[in-house]
Amino acid sequence: MQVRKVTDMNKLIGNAVVGQSGGPTAAINATLSGVIRGALAAEEIETLYGMRNGVEGLLEERLINLSEYFDSEYKLTTLENTPAAALGSCRKKLPKKGEDDSVYEKLLSVFKKYNIRYFFYIGGNDSMDTVAKLSEYTKTHDYEMRIMGVPKTIDNDLVGTDHTPGYGSAAKHIAVTLSEIIRDCAVYTKKAVTIVEIMGRDAGWLTAASALGRAAGIDAPDLVYLPEVPFSMDEFFSSVYACLDKHPNVVIAVSEGIRFADGTYVCEGISASSVDAFGHKQLSGTGKALELAVKEKIGCKVRSIELNLPQRCASHIASKTDLEESVCVGRGAVEAAVNGVTREMMTIVRKTTEPYTYEISHSDIAEIANKVKEVPREFINEEGNNVTDECVKYILPLIEGETSPEFRMGLPVHIVL
Amino acid sequence: MQVRKVTDMNKLIGNAVVGQSGGPTAAINATLSGVIRGALAAEEIETLYGMRNGVEGLLEERLINLSEYFDSEYKLTTLENTPAAALGSCRKKLPKKGEDDSVYEKLLSVFKKYNIRYFFYIGGNDSMDTVAKLSEYTKTHDYEMRIMGVPKTIDNDLVGTDHTPGYGSAAKHIAVTLSEIIRDCAVYTKKAVTIVEIMGRDAGWLTAASALGRAAGIDAPDLVYLPEVPFSMDEFFSSVYACLDKHPNVVIAVSEGIRFADGTYVCEGISASSVDAFGHKQLSGTGKALELAVKEKIGCKVRSIELNLPQRCASHIASKTDLEESVCVGRGAVEAAVNGVTREMMTIVRKTTEPYTYEISHSDIAEIANKVKEVPREFINEEGNNVTDECVKYILPLIEGETSPEFRMGLPVHIVL
Repeated sequence: MQVRKVTDMNKLIGNAVVGQSGGPTAAINATLSGVIRGALAAEEIETLYGMRNGVEGLLEERLINLSEYFDSEYKLTTLENTPAAALGSCRKKLPKKGEDDSVYEKLLSVFKKYNIRYFFYIGGNDSMDTVAKLSEYTKTHDYEMRIMGVPKTIDNDLVGTDHTPGYGSAAKHIAVTLSEIIRDCAVYTKKAVTIVEIMGRDAGWLTAASALGRAAGIDAPDLVYLPEVPFSMDEFFSSVYACLDKHPNVVIAVSEGIRFADGTYVCEGISASSVDAFGHKQLSGTGKALELAVKEKIGCKVRSIELNLPQRCASHIASKTDLEESVCVGRGAVEAAVNGVTREMMTIVRKTTEPYTYEISHSDIAEIANKVKEVPREFINEEGNNVTDECVKYILPLIEGETSPEFRMGLPVHIVL
Repeated sequence: MQVRKVTDMNKLIGNAVVGQSGGPTAAINATLSGVIRGALAAEEIETLYGMRNGVEGLLEERLINLSEYFDSEYKLTTLENTPAAALGSCRKKLPKKGEDDSVYEKLLSVFKKYNIRYFFYIGGNDSMDTVAKLSEYTKTHDYEMRIMGVPKTIDNDLVGTDHTPGYGSAAKHIAVTLSEIIRDCAVYTKKAVTIVEIMGRDAGWLTAASALGRAAGIDAPDLVYLPEVPFSMDEFFSSVYACLDKHPNVVIAVSEGIRFADGTYVCEGISASSVDAFGHKQLSGTGKALELAVKEKIGCKVRSIELNLPQRCASHIASKTDLEESVCVGRGAVEAAVNGVTREMMTIVRKTTEPYTYEISHSDIAEIANKVKEVPREFINEEGNNVTDECVKYILPLIEGETSPEFRMGLPVHIVL
């Protein structure tokens, strides 16, 4: 990161506040640790407060003194290996400018009351929207503040950054779990189809990670479907038949968000007439819907697996690269802010892929919020039923390295704030 | 283990064969490694063959020379950290005695052809049935053989042994995953119920492992339902209401096999009228069924998670204790057999719980096959909605210790035979 020199002109002394927002990840606490490390090291920051449950808790002044609590390296390391948002999270969306200013006025009064001059918000797309709106509001007020967005999302769908903290760990969990499921599926000689449903409604980055085993010579999953390419039932069936002709155990990875050409989600399209015991229309997951379709059409043994929450909270198998980057991004946000940067989101810039090198930077939050970065078409094969080797090569460095979380009595040690 | 002295009388020289059968576990290859280690060390065994896909492959003479293949400690260690059955598996049930002897005749001819004098079969309940039947058959024939069952099952439902190899690793995966899911569920302030469905149709050992975090101070899951106690919908709802009164995030662990008092599975009882797009009756899982019931009755946010296959194949988070015991049991089977033992299943005898000590032994296969060991009633609380501290104390030592599997490019290294 380019470090600007602190001059008297941009020196801002006061307190800081940090919050976590949106869905948890296995790395969001590593980023929090980075912010804490940065704040403890910055002479401009007197006390770092944590807001419980994001801006929701900030509005209610539910604050915790993090400078005081984190008095040891051990606590910080444990925090880095703790899944989910240690400060709690929220899904609060701030009102549009001019719609209801009372929320912003309340926030400003809290900032003034606690002499908060630095605001760090760790989150995904919606959280960057909060940062952008707050940035807009504070521009027009005579209370100097530095406001920084710190990205996290397992979905990897934020623009302006090569990838997002949290993605590498989720991708590693998926790649490792798939490599184990593939071994498990290989034990019988009877024809069987296994469908693994992976998170990601609009972007297929997580599902693409299912193919990483290819780098280690694993010739599966046989088929990989991302939401970026319209899904066709006919093409799906012929691909499955072709795979079953080659070997008995077919493994398929599908994104929960795959859609037909008309935009209908596959899970809606197939199981729309399914009704539960109470007479309610019941939407099964995408994997379950395809399981039923394969059972009906092909008739072989078929099973679906939804990887579900562990994708975002399995910190015992976090990516070392991801956790290290997450800490750097958090610390970098503090360093940038005390050096005068404001209204920006921290970013990761990839310098080279082989060997993998990167640097931490930042860019205008207004250019980032409310946009979705999809998997580029050239990362998906022509048939639209797998990812390319280029895609595998791009993701692979992000899952590199294992962490060594502390275990006691066979269980991982987590911190509870 | 009591080691009998090999006398000339019980010395039997020849080849051996080993197979894996039934559902895979994260430890079944550690047991295979133990058998290989034992055979390589035993002067009575000339060549150890592996049967591909259990007796199914043995009947077709699909054999692999394991003595030749495993020429390094590295290969054995990698095998121990590889999930699923490296030799492949099968679900073949041998015919009853007198029903169809041709299968047994074929097996005997293969044994004679390859001079196989030792037969080791690693498996669960059904596999022990195979061992018992083969033992019965060989008794009546003038071809000396030693036949040993080597237990494995994540279900922990075999009688005659304190616990089964494979259970500790599955229990650890469940305990670790639950501790992470519980952290994840704690981030929001909105009332929400999370239902985690765990394997185990007839015995609740795996579901009981969801409560192990209690030893580390984790006050969840709030409710734990095992198949050993009849399930009541009314009592379930009042327990959930009571939990929601105490805190917003309620986590519930349920065994897939929970049943109402009339013996109907909960998943059948609730979603019996659910019909899919093709007009077929559709059985959702137990967790999904309870999710719908909570949504209907309580109306709060609710989600269900099926832990699924990773329970039996997540070897990256295997229990060190389990893998070590699994190797010992495999090696012990060979040692016992060359010392004259036959028609027995290897067992683990717990000597003390605090500190945990055990020894390897064996007992009559005829007393073991086709029986199910349930969780004793005293391990379940009076209300039938959680396990007792005694139960936690019993299971805890089995998940102790972490393994250090090799990773390359961020992915675990597995062996493919």
